[in-house]
Parts: sequence; structure tokens; C-alpha cells
Amino acid sequence: MAEPNRVIAVDLGGTHIRVAVVCADGLLTNRRSIPTGSVDGPAVVLQRIVDLVDSVANEAGIALETPVGVSSPGPLDPRTGEVLFTPNLAGWRNVQLGERLRAGTGRPVSVANDGNCAVLGERRFGVGAGCTDLVYLALGTGVGGGVISGGRLIDGVRGFGAELGHVVVALDGPVCTCGSVGCLESFVGGWAIGRDGALMATTRDGEAIRRAAKGKLITGDVVAKAAATGDAVALAILARAGRALGAAIGAFVNIFNPEIVVIGGGVAAIGNSLLDPAWKTVTSHSFHAHRTCVRLELSALGDDTSLYGAGALVMD
Amino acid sequence: MAEPNRVIAVDLGGTHIRVAVVCADGLLTNRRSIPTGSVDGPAVVLQRIVDLVDSVANEAGIALETPVGVSSPGPLDPRTGEVLFTPNLAGWRNVQLGERLRAGTGRPVSVANDGNCAVLGERRFGVGAGCTDLVYLALGTGVGGGVISGGRLIDGVRGFGAELGHVVVALDGPVCTCGSVGCLESFVGGWAIGRDGALMATTRDGEAIRRAAKGKLITGDVVAKAAATGDAVALAILARAGRALGAAIGAFVNIFNPEIVVIGGGVAAIGNSLLDPAWKTVTSHSFHAHRTCVRLELSALGDDTSLYGAGALVMD
Repeated sequence: MAEPNRVIAVDLGGTHIRVAVVCADGLLTNRRSIPTGSVDGPAVVLQRIVDLVDSVANEAGIALETPVGVSSPGPLDPRTGEVLFTPNLAGWRNVQLGERLRAGTGRPVSVANDGNCAVLGERRFGVGAGCTDLVYLALGTGVGGGVISGGRLIDGVRGFGAELGHVVVALDGPVCTCGSVGCLESFVGGWAIGRDGALMATTRDGEAIRRAAKGKLITGDVVAKAAATGDAVALAILARAGRALGAAIGAFVNIFNPEIVVIGGGVAAIGNSLLDPAWKTVTSHSFHAHRTCVRLELSALGDDTSLYGAGALVMD
Repeated sequence: MAEPNRVIAVDLGGTHIRVAVVCADGLLTNRRSIPTGSVDGPAVVLQRIVDLVDSVANEAGIALETPVGVSSPGPLDPRTGEVLFTPNLAGWRNVQLGERLRAGTGRPVSVANDGNCAVLGERRFGVGAGCTDLVYLALGTGVGGGVISGGRLIDGVRGFGAELGHVVVALDGPVCTCGSVGCLESFVGGWAIGRDGALMATTRDGEAIRRAAKGKLITGDVVAKAAATGDAVALAILARAGRALGAAIGAFVNIFNPEIVVIGGGVAAIGNSLLDPAWKTVTSHSFHAHRTCVRLELSALGDDTSLYGAGALVMD
């Protein structure tokens, strides 16, 4: 079959369902976005996706045999499209996402987790274009990722691979949302940066962080805002997170010998106060031979990474 | 071309050069072993390998077009067979191992690093037989490894991949031979266990370790011997190493979602006092979904892993 010129991409996220048509030339058209409303339960969310796909497909005149790519939080089984569970969608446990969307839309549907979709998107449409060996890290509230090695997605025997946020960085490090301790995410996840900010805000040195919070919850964003004013405490929190990030990237570089490591997600947008310590630490935590073949880059696809990825999933 | 029934395998090690004929049914014949004598320099060592290959090939009646597989310490470039450098062979820097053996023997030669060979050997001849997703860890004086994911060797853009001993386990952990700190090897490499033993031997609590050393250098083996007598200090050293090993294996399980993790090498032979804490820590450092699809096994190929691997390299 010829590679499709236009496909339908679905980005199922914790807060929003986004659907668009992805064109082979990199154009996104017919974008639509609605709140996920996961409190309503999987059945209602599934129907919302079906309706949005139908609506976009009709609007754009997309034929029924054109495939739909879906980026979903995981872990999920990409062979069957079953979402095992996901902390971001209440009540999602063993949901047959692929099968239900297939039945609902009458279209071919492929599902992959958001990290794996993202790395496919970066390879086809982003800074990783043309690369055979790339690592993508999604730095958000949580930390996810995807890896392409020798041109092939690393997904493992059940398709659960590339959980790059949950690799040890520090034995006996902070408790992680996954139940382990010392994972990369427990240092650099948005929640982890927020945790450190909230702690420091209770101390004499936390004035700038308290001010940035304006009485609201202290998140990673709040710490980033305080750091942007030059606050030494906030900068130290980001430096610590950046160092953990750099050590993990160094490990990925030694493991995968990639051409490029792409960093995306909201936390990556914090910029130099996080990334400078990270890049510096990569140098001390990777082999010279490996380091000299790798580029470290920020994603240029921004919030659309998952949509591009879902599109790439069914174009590849 | 039909898959060859018999090939010549070379295991180039820091202390010995071993050559044998590997048969497709798993038989090793015509084994030969000589000291590497790396102090004599690369040219002399290369000639020793050529002579040994010629001698084994003549003895076994192996045709000139039959390929030779070579397992070598790395990092090396598997495309060209160039060894960039290796701490285990004095003066080896940018040695054209593949090319020189090709010229010297007149035979087709393939070269891969020992960790990558080993995982190929485990898949074809060992406990990983038939697996598409496997991780191999070589626990010796140093720590190496190899990974097959989706049936394909993970070697990266230049072929330097799978340096599994040099991934961070503890930010600010012990100094490592690679120049970094806190790598897996800096906890579980034979030299690292020996380092901890040597330190403890200088203290009041180090009596059992001193006794096991019999006045000689305190190595990982010495610590293992003291542990075998039930010495609490030696057991604590191995438990710490085992915990670092388990955390790293947990990370590999989350990254690769493999069917099997195979542990080989002399340090693995220490047994339960190292491996019990390791297996226990894997449980707390990996996702349930990933953990339930993986087996953790000791290599059954023992000292012959590299020979089998070098054979598999040219049979695959």
C-alpha cells in the first residue's frame, strides 16, 4: 500500500483530547480540541474521541480506509491497543482503546503510548528527521520517553519499553510516583521540582518561591518563575534536577549510542537554568566516543509532538 | 548463502586468546588457548591470533571461505572492525583488528565487542534461546553487556551501544574507571567489590577478609570467600553491590521490556549473597507490568560465552 498523504491523529491526554489531520509534508489541519473529562469514565471519553474523529474526518473529507493514529498515556499494549492503566485518566484499567475506536469509527486504528509516538514524530517531522538512532525525553509533570535504535522503535516483548523516566539515578533517592525510589522522574518531573519548591517555601530562604506562588499551589512552574528572577534557592533546585537529568541522558547515550537526544515537554521549556547543568553532567557521565557522535536538542514540535507522533505512527 | 554449519570463533581477552570451531548444534571443538601477552604490543598479538586461527582451521579442515567471528574488548567499530582503545590490552588504540585478521588469514572476519557477542551467543546457544528481547550483563572485573531488542542487536549509530556497566546508579557515587562517578560498575565490578574489601580490611571488623586474602591483594574473589564463611562485613559489601545491580537491572527492564535478563561473568558466580539482594531490588525498581514478563537467569555458557558469541556473530 502507498504511504498515506493525510492521516487522522488523536492525542489523548489527561486534560484534553486533540484531533487533527496530519499531512505528509508536516502540515497540521482541521485541529480540534475538547476537554477529556476523564471523571465521566472510559465509555464517555471513548465516545468523545469517536465523535471528534468523525467530525474532523467529515470536515476534511478523509476516506474511511485512511488510518487513525492514537497517542495515549500508558502503559499500553501496542499490538492490541489495550491501555493497561494510566494515572492520568481516572478509572482506565484494561481499556480496549484500539478496538473500541475501530468499532466506533469504522476506521483502521493504531495506538501507541505517547512517548513512543513522540519519538516517531520527532524522526519524521522534528529535529530528529532522518536519524536512525534517537532518544526522546518528555519532561512534563511526569517523565516519559521513546527510543528508536537502528531505525526501529524499542518497545520490548509486550510493547511496554522505553519507560525512560523510571530508571534509577540515585539509589535511596526520593520516593517516586511509580512506587520506586530515586527514578529520574523523582528529580526532574514537574511534581518533583514542585515538591522541592514547596519544601523550601516553608523555610526562611523560600521568600522568592512564596512570592512566585501567589498563595497558590507550588508547582514546577512556580519554581521556574522564581528562578527567572535570579532566586538562588530556586536555581539550586533546578540545578539539582538538571544534574539528575544529565546523568540519565549520559546513561542513555552509553546504552543507545544515539545520533540525537531530543528533549520536549513543559519542563524542558524552563530553559538554561535546568538544561545547562544537564548538558554539563552528560559530559561527565558518558564515554567520549559516544558523546562525540550525539547532538542534544530541544524539540521544535512543542505541544504538537503527540499529534505529529500519532500521525507518524500510521504513516511509518 | 546457506547458514554455515561450522565457523571459527576467536575470543580475544586481556589474558588469553582462545580459538575454537563452533558447530551449529552447539558443540565446541578444536579448542586452543594461549596467553595474549599484550605487553608485546598489537602487531605481535595480531600475529598470534592469525597463527592460532590458521592452526585450528587446518586441524579441523575448515574451508577458506568460512567466516571467522571475533569477540574483542571495546569500544570498537563493528562496521570496520577497528578497536578504538581498550583498557585490557596495553597500547591498543585504533587497531584495525578486523582488517588485519582478514589480511592475515585470508578469511572473512567479523568483529564485535565482547558484550554484544555474548548476547548473540546467549540467544543462539544459551538460556536466551529463541528470545527476541534479551539483556545480557557480564559481571567481571569490569561490567559489560549486550542487548537484543525486537530480534536486533542494539548497537547504535557507530556500534558503541550497550555499555551497560556505565550507567548511573548513584549520583555522587564512587569514582569509576571510566572517569565518571556512580556507574553500575563502580558498585559491582570485581575491582569495586575488592576496593570495598580492601578498605574494610584496614579496620577492626576486617579480620575475616584479611584471613581470606592470605596476605595477597584483596579482590572481589577474596570478599566472596570471606562472605562464604558467613562474615557479616563481606556479606554487607556484597549486599550493597547486589542492590546497585538490582536497581540497574530494574532500569533495563523498564527500558527494554525484555523476556529475559541473563547474568554472566566471574562475579555472577559469587551467587546468592550477591544475587538475592539484586533480585529483591529489581522488584522495587521496575514496573509490575514489565517485571511480570521477564525471567532473570544465570548464563549457562560460563567461560565459553564469548566463544559461543563470536560463533553466533557469523552464524546469524
